[in-house]
Amino acid sequence: MSKKDRLIYLPLGGAGEIGMNCYVYGYGPADRERLIVVDLGVTFPDMETSPGVDLILPDVSWLRENAERIEAIFITHAHEDHVGALGWLWPDLKAPVYARRFTAAIATLKMEELGRPLDVIREVAPRPASVKAGPFTVQFVPVSHSIPESSALVIDSPAGRIVHTGDFKLDGTPIVGEPFNPHLWHEIAREGDGVKVLTCDSTNVFSPRPGRSEATLTAPLTDLILGQKGMVVATTFASNVARLKTLAEAGRAAGRSVCLLGRAMRRMVKTAAETGVLKDFPPLITPEEALSLPRSEVMLLVTGSQGERRAASAALSRGKYLGLELKEGDLFLFSSKTIPGNERGVIRVMNALSEIGVVVVDDNDGLYHVSGHANRPDLEAVHDLMAPRILLPMHGEHRHLREHCRIAAAKGLGWELATNGTMVDLTGEAPSVVEMIEAGRIYLDGTVMIGAMDGVVRDRIRMAMNGHVLVTVLLDEEDRPVGDAWVETMGLAERTSGGRPLAEAVEGELNAYLDIAAEDVLAEDDKLEEALKRIVRKAVMEEAGKKPEVTVVTSRLVAE
Amino acid sequence: MSKKDRLIYLPLGGAGEIGMNCYVYGYGPADRERLIVVDLGVTFPDMETSPGVDLILPDVSWLRENAERIEAIFITHAHEDHVGALGWLWPDLKAPVYARRFTAAIATLKMEELGRPLDVIREVAPRPASVKAGPFTVQFVPVSHSIPESSALVIDSPAGRIVHTGDFKLDGTPIVGEPFNPHLWHEIAREGDGVKVLTCDSTNVFSPRPGRSEATLTAPLTDLILGQKGMVVATTFASNVARLKTLAEAGRAAGRSVCLLGRAMRRMVKTAAETGVLKDFPPLITPEEALSLPRSEVMLLVTGSQGERRAASAALSRGKYLGLELKEGDLFLFSSKTIPGNERGVIRVMNALSEIGVVVVDDNDGLYHVSGHANRPDLEAVHDLMAPRILLPMHGEHRHLREHCRIAAAKGLGWELATNGTMVDLTGEAPSVVEMIEAGRIYLDGTVMIGAMDGVVRDRIRMAMNGHVLVTVLLDEEDRPVGDAWVETMGLAERTSGGRPLAEAVEGELNAYLDIAAEDVLAEDDKLEEALKRIVRKAVMEEAGKKPEVTVVTSRLVAE
Repeated sequence: MSKKDRLIYLPLGGAGEIGMNCYVYGYGPADRERLIVVDLGVTFPDMETSPGVDLILPDVSWLRENAERIEAIFITHAHEDHVGALGWLWPDLKAPVYARRFTAAIATLKMEELGRPLDVIREVAPRPASVKAGPFTVQFVPVSHSIPESSALVIDSPAGRIVHTGDFKLDGTPIVGEPFNPHLWHEIAREGDGVKVLTCDSTNVFSPRPGRSEATLTAPLTDLILGQKGMVVATTFASNVARLKTLAEAGRAAGRSVCLLGRAMRRMVKTAAETGVLKDFPPLITPEEALSLPRSEVMLLVTGSQGERRAASAALSRGKYLGLELKEGDLFLFSSKTIPGNERGVIRVMNALSEIGVVVVDDNDGLYHVSGHANRPDLEAVHDLMAPRILLPMHGEHRHLREHCRIAAAKGLGWELATNGTMVDLTGEAPSVVEMIEAGRIYLDGTVMIGAMDGVVRDRIRMAMNGHVLVTVLLDEEDRPVGDAWVETMGLAERTSGGRPLAEAVEGELNAYLDIAAEDVLAEDDKLEEALKRIVRKAVMEEAGKKPEVTVVTSRLVAE
Repeated sequence: MSKKDRLIYLPLGGAGEIGMNCYVYGYGPADRERLIVVDLGVTFPDMETSPGVDLILPDVSWLRENAERIEAIFITHAHEDHVGALGWLWPDLKAPVYARRFTAAIATLKMEELGRPLDVIREVAPRPASVKAGPFTVQFVPVSHSIPESSALVIDSPAGRIVHTGDFKLDGTPIVGEPFNPHLWHEIAREGDGVKVLTCDSTNVFSPRPGRSEATLTAPLTDLILGQKGMVVATTFASNVARLKTLAEAGRAAGRSVCLLGRAMRRMVKTAAETGVLKDFPPLITPEEALSLPRSEVMLLVTGSQGERRAASAALSRGKYLGLELKEGDLFLFSSKTIPGNERGVIRVMNALSEIGVVVVDDNDGLYHVSGHANRPDLEAVHDLMAPRILLPMHGEHRHLREHCRIAAAKGLGWELATNGTMVDLTGEAPSVVEMIEAGRIYLDGTVMIGAMDGVVRDRIRMAMNGHVLVTVLLDEEDRPVGDAWVETMGLAERTSGGRPLAEAVEGELNAYLDIAAEDVLAEDDKLEEALKRIVRKAVMEEAGKKPEVTVVTSRLVAE
């Protein structure tokens, strides 16, 4: 370790938000550190802040500018918020991608969809296997989460050991994957100088009770399903393969054959089986076979636990889906938690099911779902087990990170509340912020990438709030209006509060102005547009109480 | 009771949704029943389904058409979802409005704001006082809820007694207002033929544990506040005057002076004091006085528990508000529940407070808030106490009404799941649906009322999802294009995925088409617009992966 080398940490996504994870570690001379990237995730748009957007990606401009310094990309697990941006952003980074088998298989699909090279993906075995990436040596350590093969990373650098937990929970009986093994973690904490930095999941820091194991769901789920006479449908995240197994086994125990509905879910189960992480999954039947069986012998496992309009759940709530139709007396189970912001969509599906007469059961009582994240007591147990000198909370909104820092402070640990874009120097025994990097969001909109702050989405929101008025004016060679101004509106009431056609009312005001407009205004597009916009806004405000967006098109005839 | 007379029930809002309450009862010859209206509430827009809308009102077309049959309007309590539409819709109904004192005061403010007559509002004392309204005799019976002076209505008709609960909970120690009195209810149930119909709140039918009293909050709130060294801020619904008193007293007990922030809250407390429903409220200080005191001696009670952008909570989270500013070490308490759909707004405020360093406490553990609605065991207790022959669940989404019907069925009661627009005949011993009335939503948009299905808001949502392209084409007297087509875009990326200016790319396609377009297309505006729209959509889909809204303006030169 040279005196001039430093160890840095830079979150570019996932620190100050839940989702869109992307973290960078670097080691070497300042501004020439060799870099590794941990996770390349996406987050999802919503109508309130990002209408019409398809996907939200971290802004990796800084990585792109420093692409030649990147040694490797590590993917902790195959959730969209950890791997979803890989295919989109890989061309900016062009580094080898390391992941365990199942995650590598999903990462490969992501790359394949966008025509990226597949040979950059390297499958890695768990610790003690390790990857050498420039000054770093990295090991994948199995942890429990709500998807198979989640991993924490043990990252050794000349300036000390970092443990990057990824998403995790402590589960001694996780149904799929390795149980939590305190001895393994104790070993990691004791090797060499121990753990310098724990970069730690904060998602459930506000959950005060210890987390429960996946295995606790088997009995209540089996009881619930045993009591049913109609069809049973259950939804959870497509990637929660352990839950799918728990549900399917509960269905089997109740004498039901299991059918998967939803492309994402079938793909996950297939990949999990092919990569060997999912064993002994009950045999599956096709939708056609499900149709031929009595309802009491069928269990459907379906996508759409978050109320997504296009998923199988929503489709079933609206009517037939692949020939299958729900009826009075059927049961629909949400074996899931509603992510904040998705409530309306989930409630919409629940009410549509209620209208059909289906009994809807959710996790109100905590019987049918367990979280994939460590709760506060579990986080504290991990702090104590790993005994890091510095805690860097990640995977959380600002309030989660702050609460996690409070816990670190109370334990006498060093800590830093580093949100996206905060570069932290971890070389010494106390962390320090050295630089703020431009970190933001990029929107995939159709097939185009746009900056979140570019104004495109802002204009859409404004049109949605205020409506849009289009004004067309034709001027002759001498800048005199030809005919009247023409107004079209979209997203505005047709009539004013007084009952007149709104477009006519606005045209009246515009034409009155054009009759008396000064020559220099008529001669200059910018001036004229500004003047006409003002008149439109004023008129619509007076006539309808709205302040619309306005586009003015001035056409000028030219002498032939 | 003539053989030809019937008793009807018709919900126009609030049955199949939470909010926008409006219920009609009628008695008399079919289609000539004399009517009473219970509540005239609003609901609130959201970005996903009603962007830009100011307020959502029930569609009372049916009442307007039958206005001369309306004997009276009764308002159960002063929440916006029960009284908020009064001022807007009264001119359609023009009937006297009955309410208890506090509610009448708020109703008067609503009428005053819109310049409606005030003398139609009649203040009524609680039972045994009664109002005669055509064939009905109506009594107001005090119930507990999260606003002062909530009332159930006992509605006597020649065909039997109806108890319309309004929003209610069972609270023996409600801090403000009358405690729950089972004897009174028992008396109502025993009089005459007892209760024929119980029209009953369903909001909390999925809450399995008995509700808690407002008084249970005093100790935990006092403990929480006593432990604080900085400023303490608490938010709850402005109209929850009992909670404000509980909070203010807890603050006083901790040696703090109380300051109210937010117009709605000051108005509620003032009205409650003036109408005598609020007694012994701790003395209040002004924001200026709060500024002059040490932070440890101040408690702010503020509006904005739902994360509303313009309320005091959000303002304080962003910086100074009336000179007051929060700091590291202050405490911010949400003594409230987040209404589904408001999560993002609330979380935004919480994170902004976290960024300042303020400790945010919410009701995660159920210590600092109690619901204003009866939970399932309380609902069942009321069913048993009132012993109705028919249960009509109201105040709930479809799933709540269905669950409430299930309970009624299990008890052997008659029931009907009547959503908005369902006219139910209650004359006999079993309810029956007799007619479906057009019932929907009206949007107040600026100063104009628009139908929810008019397409105006649908167009706004489409512009927000897809962007808007404007095409201007100029044609000469012989229908030949003059110059090129002109394209403006709003809410679309400036450049295509290939990097070309999008407007240019689209113009290229349009001009290529105009060069070869058939004469009959060029001659007809509709045909031409259709053709150009198709070209724009196809071009933008190819170049940017979006299918935009398109407006085409064709200007035609006329021979002079």
